Amino acid sequence: MLRRVVALTGGVGGAKLVSGLAGVLSNDQLTVIVNTGDDFEHLGLVICPDLDSVIYALAGLANPHTGWGRVDETWNFMEALGELGGPTWFRVGDRDLALHHERTRLIGEDHSLTAVTQHICQALGVAVAVLPMSDQPVRTIVISDEGELSFQDYFVAHSCEPRVYGFHFDGLETANPAPGVLEALLATDLVILCPSNPWVSLDPILSVSGVREAVAAKPVIGVSPIVGGKTIKGPAAKMFVDLGFESSALAVAEHFQDLLSGLVIDREDEAMASEITLLGMRVLVADTIMKTADDRPRLAEEIIDFASG
Amino acid sequence: MLRRVVALTGGVGGAKLVSGLAGVLSNDQLTVIVNTGDDFEHLGLVICPDLDSVIYALAGLANPHTGWGRVDETWNFMEALGELGGPTWFRVGDRDLALHHERTRLIGEDHSLTAVTQHICQALGVAVAVLPMSDQPVRTIVISDEGELSFQDYFVAHSCEPRVYGFHFDGLETANPAPGVLEALLATDLVILCPSNPWVSLDPILSVSGVREAVAAKPVIGVSPIVGGKTIKGPAAKMFVDLGFESSALAVAEHFQDLLSGLVIDREDEAMASEITLLGMRVLVADTIMKTADDRPRLAEEIIDFASG
Repeated sequence: MLRRVVALTGGVGGAKLVSGLAGVLSNDQLTVIVNTGDDFEHLGLVICPDLDSVIYALAGLANPHTGWGRVDETWNFMEALGELGGPTWFRVGDRDLALHHERTRLIGEDHSLTAVTQHICQALGVAVAVLPMSDQPVRTIVISDEGELSFQDYFVAHSCEPRVYGFHFDGLETANPAPGVLEALLATDLVILCPSNPWVSLDPILSVSGVREAVAAKPVIGVSPIVGGKTIKGPAAKMFVDLGFESSALAVAEHFQDLLSGLVIDREDEAMASEITLLGMRVLVADTIMKTADDRPRLAEEIIDFASG
Repeated sequence: MLRRVVALTGGVGGAKLVSGLAGVLSNDQLTVIVNTGDDFEHLGLVICPDLDSVIYALAGLANPHTGWGRVDETWNFMEALGELGGPTWFRVGDRDLALHHERTRLIGEDHSLTAVTQHICQALGVAVAVLPMSDQPVRTIVISDEGELSFQDYFVAHSCEPRVYGFHFDGLETANPAPGVLEALLATDLVILCPSNPWVSLDPILSVSGVREAVAAKPVIGVSPIVGGKTIKGPAAKMFVDLGFESSALAVAEHFQDLLSGLVIDREDEAMASEITLLGMRVLVADTIMKTADDRPRLAEEIIDFASG
């Protein structure tokens, strides 16, 4: 029987699975380690998109339509900012803005991102341990045919259109895993790689000093973010193709081959199961697209059963 | 006939009269010089309460009920900030917040407060020249029985309750009048001291190097902010009493005796008119409380007629 689970995740799809895992595990069984490579400074604020998506998902505050931001949001700040000629390319809702402000204020008072994340979780009633991958800034840079772009510049301002040649993670050399990250990995019975972007959500976490080795020492189950060659949301599929790979669950399996004991793929990709098995991992075929709130604990349960099997 | 008018003002009552003056003068006839002694940094933002009140009043965006902030405002940012345990003692609406953000962003890009104010006015369709008293920070400190308090700390956090012993204006030694301030005073036919707090709205402006002398060289008409011994809004009356004066239109006349060629007082204070005249200034008795939008140009017109008489 599994006692402890660590989930590595980005935002959106990963955040959905995390909320499913929180539904089927007790609070002290689950630790979530979140990508901070997409973090950036905007409007003078420290913005952590993946942490926010995960926290909002766990708090039941996530906007079910956008995949980011809060439910029941208003946009009066953004509208008034636009009237003043201010920068509106990155959309921030009125309530969401409060989270960025409070995080920025507390970091300005020399609290660590870990401590601030814990404070925010507490305030929003999130009892699961949510950890940033590092307290030091690590910034994903997209090397593209339009030059080196910061992630949000590539993702939002350029709508993921530039062709991607590679990535690097600024600050990685001096970044340490956040307090609790290695401890949680050491103590866990299972690591789940959530259905997040392998290149810009999971790789940054795995690149932080000591994390990949700690993950590799444990049973690891991945969930393919690629379904039928496409991603539900985000540029993962396009990145595989830009970088010269096919976009498929098989490519995901190969990307994490050295880590995975098993991969969960969608029914749509069932034909690839035997080929993935040849890479030396087990395969679970499941409905991986979480359309409804019920899909989340259902998939989480199936993953945990698969890992325990 | 008056060609040019300069109004010195704080927020609230002064802002109302300014919008009245803008209604009866053409745009190139009026220059407004605004107190910045109440400005402060909060939530990482440069907040200029009096400039905002004046700009909102001129743009027709002022909240008619509060005397500060915007009309049609929402408070979702503040509510969410409160849920996170953030500082909510200074109320900022969702739309108002955009102004503070955009100002802060532009000042961070090394634009002067004068340039930023001009930009904001343009964006909001305000064609009257609105000038901060200085581009350098000057901060009103209230010396009180609770110690030295920054103005917003005294005004908002302490609700004006501490007993006031005096004031000083931090930064005054190194502050210069903003570009255009001395030029406007030199070119003007009339200076109007709006019905603003003498101690913490008008005195800071007059204390900026060279301003008092430039004002003193011109005909100056004041409008008493004290009516029947009280203020419509704000702590002016209490400050007169705390400092050992009576709170009256006469005390206002004495406070600005060296500058005023005339003072506008309310009908309620008509009995003081002859005593004020003995101080060497003319007196206009008028309805000075601007309850309706129509009261503003009506009072502005009366003041200008009085000045021209």
